[in-house]
Amino acid sequence: MPRRIDHVAIIVRNLEQALSFYRDTLGIVPGEIQEVPTEQVRIAFLPLGGPEGSQLELIEPTPANVSLNKFLDKRGEGLHHVCLEVENVDASLESLKEKGAAVMDQQPRLAAEGRAIFLHPKSSNGVLLELLEKPE
Amino acid sequence: MPRRIDHVAIIVRNLEQALSFYRDTLGIVPGEIQEVPTEQVRIAFLPLGGPEGSQLELIEPTPANVSLNKFLDKRGEGLHHVCLEVENVDASLESLKEKGAAVMDQQPRLAAEGRAIFLHPKSSNGVLLELLEKPE
Repeated sequence: MPRRIDHVAIIVRNLEQALSFYRDTLGIVPGEIQEVPTEQVRIAFLPLGGPEGSQLELIEPTPANVSLNKFLDKRGEGLHHVCLEVENVDASLESLKEKGAAVMDQQPRLAAEGRAIFLHPKSSNGVLLELLEKPE
Repeated sequence: MPRRIDHVAIIVRNLEQALSFYRDTLGIVPGEIQEVPTEQVRIAFLPLGGPEGSQLELIEPTPANVSLNKFLDKRGEGLHHVCLEVENVDASLESLKEKGAAVMDQQPRLAAEGRAIFLHPKSSNGVLLELLEKPE
């Protein structure tokens, strides 16, 4: 069973413009902007609720990021996925496969914050879900 | 400044079918299904992360709910809004109005969990945001 919501990701066209709303208008203190060239994105986390809390994540795809730019063209800016923290992502993957869920990864991928798998929205009521195991 | 993410809402066509994924496949223990006739919805919360954690909320509109059925027809099932808990929703509303945010309520509405306002996605990068003040 997932432990907690780790983050909720929002795709935006321009990180600085988005921060002008989330930071300056709404008043959330963001973390530093991170360039993640391996994933062709720039991101900023907006931590809420203290160390055990859940975060918003703003994601700006770089021009080379085909799939996220396609998402922006088709749906516009907005909610993209929800990331749930799990204790053991390998065990979660096995269990989900057994139960016939539409897992998008045959083995966990290395994400910025740990090891993760994605579930296709078709088995989770239209929601792209990430399951993340963080390092100890 | 918002305190924490209270919940992330997912619109579904059929609550029982959605629970068969979120409860039986993913393993989250849901709260009871609530009928909320005043809002023309049936809902179930999926608590995560303990008492201070954030929840997923599954929402099934009743046939009479025009706006959510329009959402389903247009976008299909999926993520609908993010609710942030604030200390004082009246103060938040004043501050957001002053800063020119697209608030959808001229005064807080009575929601199931407290007093709330909604922000139109046009000022929050495509994300429908609820700001909620819970009773003490």
